[in-house]
Amino acid sequence: MTSVENLLRTAAVRPMASGRVFNFSAGPACLPIEVLQQLQQDLVDLRGSGMGILEVSHRGPLFDQLLDESHSAFRRVAAVGSEWATLFIPGGATLQFGMIPMNFLPDGGHADYADTGLWATKALVDAKTVGRVNTTFDGKAFAFNRTPNANEAAPTPGAAYHHWCSNNTVDGTKWTVVPQAAAGGWLARDASSDLFSEPLDLRHHGVVYAAAQKNLGPSGMTMVLIRRDLLGKACRKLPSMLRYDEYDKHESRPNTPNTFGIHVVGLICQWIERNGGVHAMQRLAANRCGLLLQAIDQSGGFWRAHSERACQSPINVLFRSPSSELDSSFVAAAAAAGMDGLAGHRSTGGIRASMYNAMPLEGAQALADFMGDFARRNG
Amino acid sequence: MTSVENLLRTAAVRPMASGRVFNFSAGPACLPIEVLQQLQQDLVDLRGSGMGILEVSHRGPLFDQLLDESHSAFRRVAAVGSEWATLFIPGGATLQFGMIPMNFLPDGGHADYADTGLWATKALVDAKTVGRVNTTFDGKAFAFNRTPNANEAAPTPGAAYHHWCSNNTVDGTKWTVVPQAAAGGWLARDASSDLFSEPLDLRHHGVVYAAAQKNLGPSGMTMVLIRRDLLGKACRKLPSMLRYDEYDKHESRPNTPNTFGIHVVGLICQWIERNGGVHAMQRLAANRCGLLLQAIDQSGGFWRAHSERACQSPINVLFRSPSSELDSSFVAAAAAAGMDGLAGHRSTGGIRASMYNAMPLEGAQALADFMGDFARRNG
Repeated sequence: MTSVENLLRTAAVRPMASGRVFNFSAGPACLPIEVLQQLQQDLVDLRGSGMGILEVSHRGPLFDQLLDESHSAFRRVAAVGSEWATLFIPGGATLQFGMIPMNFLPDGGHADYADTGLWATKALVDAKTVGRVNTTFDGKAFAFNRTPNANEAAPTPGAAYHHWCSNNTVDGTKWTVVPQAAAGGWLARDASSDLFSEPLDLRHHGVVYAAAQKNLGPSGMTMVLIRRDLLGKACRKLPSMLRYDEYDKHESRPNTPNTFGIHVVGLICQWIERNGGVHAMQRLAANRCGLLLQAIDQSGGFWRAHSERACQSPINVLFRSPSSELDSSFVAAAAAAGMDGLAGHRSTGGIRASMYNAMPLEGAQALADFMGDFARRNG
Repeated sequence: MTSVENLLRTAAVRPMASGRVFNFSAGPACLPIEVLQQLQQDLVDLRGSGMGILEVSHRGPLFDQLLDESHSAFRRVAAVGSEWATLFIPGGATLQFGMIPMNFLPDGGHADYADTGLWATKALVDAKTVGRVNTTFDGKAFAFNRTPNANEAAPTPGAAYHHWCSNNTVDGTKWTVVPQAAAGGWLARDASSDLFSEPLDLRHHGVVYAAAQKNLGPSGMTMVLIRRDLLGKACRKLPSMLRYDEYDKHESRPNTPNTFGIHVVGLICQWIERNGGVHAMQRLAANRCGLLLQAIDQSGGFWRAHSERACQSPINVLFRSPSSELDSSFVAAAAAAGMDGLAGHRSTGGIRASMYNAMPLEGAQALADFMGDFARRNG
């Protein structure tokens, strides 16, 4: 680790008067305080049961109720019909990097993967341990600063599925067009950093999945939407925890599930509903991002965005000052002012502001003001 | 579900004056109140950071510190040397049912499995999806009411490993002898319900694993101890989340891990240390179990234990009254008196008291008194 990296990691954070900071981490990320306060209560006494959420049986009536509530809230926010199964699966999005090809990439067949950034690359590398993979788009050549246009990332005939990552957390880009699947195939989408930040478009998809630690709650939990007709179509024999049908058959508890994680995801989905649903989240994301882009555009060239503007993620905004030293001192100064988690990913450097659903507009405004001030003082 | 099962599941539980019940669930199970209170604080403001444990970055300095503390505490309680890797892995023990054969049961080879109860059976069934399995012991014939004696469960020549489940949660039995591995092979132990309830004996083992929701904290987290020399010996190419070496190389965070679960396991291990370590836990378990066995023995035949006495688990005690109706009314009456989770597993029926490390002796005493009283009134 370089001394600059070390400085970034250890930058002292000063909480604000509220006792809480604005947390711009890429995930795990900030959660609504009202959900955290509910969880404080639930940890010791869940609904007057005399037991906490970590203690109640995953087969008892109390957890039956929580599971039903979480599941229903997730489905309402996703607005999915009965042709979709919605599953709580452990292991983060990365376990899906393995499960999707193990279930659906047959021996002798192949699958398409669009490589638009670090996580998309990882999905592709894991799939290669299972079977033959074709790369439909390779963004490495231009440091992943854009996603495919409508003429790129064409699927190849016979591909079982086409995997894409709709929002690239590390690189701060999003797709401007939805890719296509080969005839007879379907799309598999990693929506870890943008699920429920906008209405969910499931057309042409077979699987959509999202790690929870960005918009949905705690790390270690993954939400998977899978078309029901695929549940019985695994192409090889697999242990139970790697089979989607096992999760579906047992209401996401083929074994003792992460009961806490399931409950938190439910509370977050209910919070999204109370706050206007995915349409309100989409407006909020656009407004937050707009404030930062304005600060970049008004800095007279001091701040430069990493992503091509058309592909700019509304969720993860990457930018740089004229030098890595100034980047570091910005991250440290922001932390001291109560804005945490602004160091870019170790693979990109620079500055990254990740703003998931629970980030209030005030957080983006505070950061934009701070950027403007910093540019004036150092430009 | 029968009406009796339904009654058992919905038995109203009345918390005691303390606001908490004695929770005899098989897992998730009761946790120390002081750990839960610490977690209440950590949810909203972890060590003065202005962020909660669900919100801090898994690569930031605060979580670095928590991971190190959890990992160190686990290793101290386990008393393992440097030849063992200790890993936090998601997916519960059931993911290990798949990972162990995927990593170590080679094509053309075979592995031994001792079938001593429901979870041992599940491990065996999952292994069969991967390769050839030999059953060294089949307890189904006698309803799993005992484990193998020293002349049974012999390993077969050439077996890669011999899998055993040391304490059978559903059936309330433990092994009285440690099984043997074939020459050149090693033992794989599922210690989900007895890890850290006694000193850990790692001799002849290659892998020992335990789901956390019994003695270690929250469901969805599994602790895996693996001999370092096995880390590089996976017999097939696998996606990253199914490779032990990936967890080891990245300090149990090959992806974004279940940060909350890792923190809770650490707090529980520190609680075990503060309360005398595994030797004190072993004495406590023996004393708790002794109280229940005494109540059974002094009931004049009203209560009958499921397990042969020599194989009686000190952790999970299964017993029955003369009728399933009386069993049901006992479970309901105990719940009304503040003792929850006493219904037997759906596969066995009857009554089951699960008493993990966090169950105080007072809980076992209250239950034993209640058993005596119930036997006198209904005998």
